[in-house]
Amino acid sequence: MLVIGVDAGGTSTRAVLATAEGRCLGHGRGGSGNPTSAGIALAADGVLTAVQQALAAAGADLADVTAIVAAMAGHDSNGGATPWLADPLTQRGFRGTLAFESDLLAMYCSGAVAPVGYGVVCGTGASVVRVQDGRIVATADGLGWLLGDRGSGFWIGRRAAHAAVDELEGIGPGTALTPLVLEAAGVPVEGADGPGRDGRPRGLGRLIRALYAQRPVQLAELAPLVFTAAEDGDAVARAILDRAGELLSGSFDLVRDGSGPVVMGGSIVSRPGPVQARLRAHLDVAEGRYPVVTVESGVAGATMLALRHAGVPVGEEHLALLRSGLPG
Amino acid sequence: MLVIGVDAGGTSTRAVLATAEGRCLGHGRGGSGNPTSAGIALAADGVLTAVQQALAAAGADLADVTAIVAAMAGHDSNGGATPWLADPLTQRGFRGTLAFESDLLAMYCSGAVAPVGYGVVCGTGASVVRVQDGRIVATADGLGWLLGDRGSGFWIGRRAAHAAVDELEGIGPGTALTPLVLEAAGVPVEGADGPGRDGRPRGLGRLIRALYAQRPVQLAELAPLVFTAAEDGDAVARAILDRAGELLSGSFDLVRDGSGPVVMGGSIVSRPGPVQARLRAHLDVAEGRYPVVTVESGVAGATMLALRHAGVPVGEEHLALLRSGLPG
Repeated sequence: MLVIGVDAGGTSTRAVLATAEGRCLGHGRGGSGNPTSAGIALAADGVLTAVQQALAAAGADLADVTAIVAAMAGHDSNGGATPWLADPLTQRGFRGTLAFESDLLAMYCSGAVAPVGYGVVCGTGASVVRVQDGRIVATADGLGWLLGDRGSGFWIGRRAAHAAVDELEGIGPGTALTPLVLEAAGVPVEGADGPGRDGRPRGLGRLIRALYAQRPVQLAELAPLVFTAAEDGDAVARAILDRAGELLSGSFDLVRDGSGPVVMGGSIVSRPGPVQARLRAHLDVAEGRYPVVTVESGVAGATMLALRHAGVPVGEEHLALLRSGLPG
Repeated sequence: MLVIGVDAGGTSTRAVLATAEGRCLGHGRGGSGNPTSAGIALAADGVLTAVQQALAAAGADLADVTAIVAAMAGHDSNGGATPWLADPLTQRGFRGTLAFESDLLAMYCSGAVAPVGYGVVCGTGASVVRVQDGRIVATADGLGWLLGDRGSGFWIGRRAAHAAVDELEGIGPGTALTPLVLEAAGVPVEGADGPGRDGRPRGLGRLIRALYAQRPVQLAELAPLVFTAAEDGDAVARAILDRAGELLSGSFDLVRDGSGPVVMGGSIVSRPGPVQARLRAHLDVAEGRYPVVTVESGVAGATMLALRHAGVPVGEEHLALLRSGLPG
């Protein structure tokens, strides 16, 4: 008996083919697998590419697969309609069970088997969930870049842009972020504060044009600059990261209800620094009530969920075997 | 001798045909006249429609017109290239001077003739400029919805959305804004705080989906709700408007340099309430150092600038005559 777990993200998709024991037989990668962000055709292509790579690595076939779990944001599989993925899978010989699950639940299951625990995901976006009996019973944030994602990569990146804009505008303190952000936006640092049109600093007009020429969510790409500047002792950068850690801690408190493992994933909480440090301090990690596990993706968890859908009573040994079989 | 002033906005365009004395012979309206937001073809159509209506009202012809001033945001006429508007005007018989000016300068000139003064524009966006010798010498804000426009309609509307989201999320106080925002977004108020998917309040998921389905800048449409709630005594709404007034006052201070008339335009500063009150208190209007004039649009100012381009030494009497001739 074989199962496939799929972690379908907004930019890339990962798939793992595994045995009932949790042995990883093959893995694959594809493009975006999220129909909300990529559209149905591209998303189906992203998932199928990853699935077929995983199968090919083991010389296996879709007809041999008992269950597939596709984990994705929203996990409502295109508003409840599953044919966008079910149909092409059936056409390729799949006769098993296809289920959609939350990417946040898959992330949790990638790091913990305990029926009660927490998932903290902080990459471009940010959310914290409490898991109980294998499902999400409470969610904090995950409200998107415009109205939420407190402490996320977007949140941090937007504050980096703001720090540069505010210094040039004359309403914020000097910060090492300003030249870093100007450079990242392709604006000459030299003479940026010189006189430009309508009595505005030259670099400010250019920076604004460069930042508005991209999609808002791309501000998240500035987040690594804040880590760099904070490591170099910049007070503004340090304050941004401290605040991000506080906000994530606040989101944790919104769903906190007893002890349990905390599974963390995403670029912001994976990177050592003030965000992670604040959050760990807040969780009393030292007391052991909230043991922290860091995971790379939700693909192991999606595979654990697929095993469950196939009726396998999964345990720690399945997860350990799966994780040891994943590419680094 | 005749001139035409054009106020080319992002959603609509106004044009006025006037004599050398400032007598308004005709006026017209068209769609968006801004090539940055609407594209060259639509923008040219918006301006030409308004111009031809103004001419038709007086039975005049483009060949009779000495100067046209088109005022628009950015006022760089499509990155310095003017043919998008100059060519179709020439094809229709125009032989005079075409000049592009800042919409902010036109707004100022719609309310004041003094060579030194201030323009405060606060509608969807927000900026404050200092005018000296007929040109803008200092600019505060105008940095757009994502990184600036402090105290603007967008700023206020986004905070209204946040107030509703934060109450439902459990991190903000109760506010009359929540039902108002839910209603505006088409989300049932009844049962909004009941349990929804993944342990999130039902109304929160719906509200988020509704707000992200529109363009971010449309959050500005929520601003009037904040005025309504503040008038009804809601403390959260009142605090948002107070803060908006403080931020606009801060922007004013960035360009403040001596006394002069303050010309205000835009839906947020035109509407009586805490924003206008804070700003007026900050400006020491009572001392008379900053006499405030409120204007509807920049079309009178664009026409004043056209008269200047035609070599007319304009004065208060021209502006008074122009304003009295405009439709209400």
